[in-house]
Amino acid sequence: MSVNTSTEAATLLNDVDIEAVGNLIQAVSTDSSKSATTWRARVTWLGAFRSEAKVRSFDPIPSDEPAALGGTDSAPNPVEQVLAALGNCLAVGYAANATARGIEIDELSIDISGNLDLHTFLGLRPGGHAGFDDIAVDVKLQSSATSAELAELHEHVLQTSPVGHTLRSTIPVETTITFA
Amino acid sequence: MSVNTSTEAATLLNDVDIEAVGNLIQAVSTDSSKSATTWRARVTWLGAFRSEAKVRSFDPIPSDEPAALGGTDSAPNPVEQVLAALGNCLAVGYAANATARGIEIDELSIDISGNLDLHTFLGLRPGGHAGFDDIAVDVKLQSSATSAELAELHEHVLQTSPVGHTLRSTIPVETTITFA
Repeated sequence: MSVNTSTEAATLLNDVDIEAVGNLIQAVSTDSSKSATTWRARVTWLGAFRSEAKVRSFDPIPSDEPAALGGTDSAPNPVEQVLAALGNCLAVGYAANATARGIEIDELSIDISGNLDLHTFLGLRPGGHAGFDDIAVDVKLQSSATSAELAELHEHVLQTSPVGHTLRSTIPVETTITFA
Repeated sequence: MSVNTSTEAATLLNDVDIEAVGNLIQAVSTDSSKSATTWRARVTWLGAFRSEAKVRSFDPIPSDEPAALGGTDSAPNPVEQVLAALGNCLAVGYAANATARGIEIDELSIDISGNLDLHTFLGLRPGGHAGFDDIAVDVKLQSSATSAELAELHEHVLQTSPVGHTLRSTIPVETTITFA
């Protein structure tokens, strides 16, 4: 592990802006209400099984279904997007918490897979579970930190991952519809 | 509601390939094992809080965090991606099930928002919930179908949404890590 403890280098460990994260932690510690965040997306249907999700001012996230599911296969489908979000969230978790511990990450890749039975989605099992039955995550982390340090990092990331907890918990989803 | 019942027009209702969906339902009805699907994504960390998720051969889904969370704000963050996936999934659900019912959709947009408390993610509440506390979905559906038809469609979509069920249920997430 090569952690440079000079101020300048530490600020750039893993390319993370440690100061910004530290400031946020300090702000939330001082004023608990600062931890309340609201996130948004707006989805527009484009015809067939194509849609796109707009988040703030970023390029929309396109969505479609494979031909076998009746789509035109122009983009990842929504359940693949969930797996992508989980992997991206874990990546932030490793980067943030490794940096906080002075651990340098050399390389990090995360393979995610999920099993899903289509019966309920296809209307063949009324009242059944339509979502993932299980999700498997395989993390490959290259670092010169010790195995003990990396194992502790890994446990902490799993215990604090927003998308990980969202999937492993029951989240209330309230839906309203307006017909026009 | 203007449902054209000629074979050609019906095949193109809502631009959906009804035949492909029908074939899949038929195949799963006949051979239950055909409903087992596995979906995958591979995430690569790019430095700081930036990463990208590769799904099949599509352009990767980029991810970052806002500056207030220590990121460089180059892309939607992972929890926004979850909301995007939910909206995209519901859009498929409306398109598929409206088509199956002969309902023409004129326009469909879906606003999704989710509240998330940062204490656990920031390490300030050990053992706490790091995920969304709740998610709200606001659907706007334009169609000349009756309110009763659209209400029934809406209920069916909610009961069969893969991403909706994934969020509203407890999904086992098994994680392994390899250090190198």
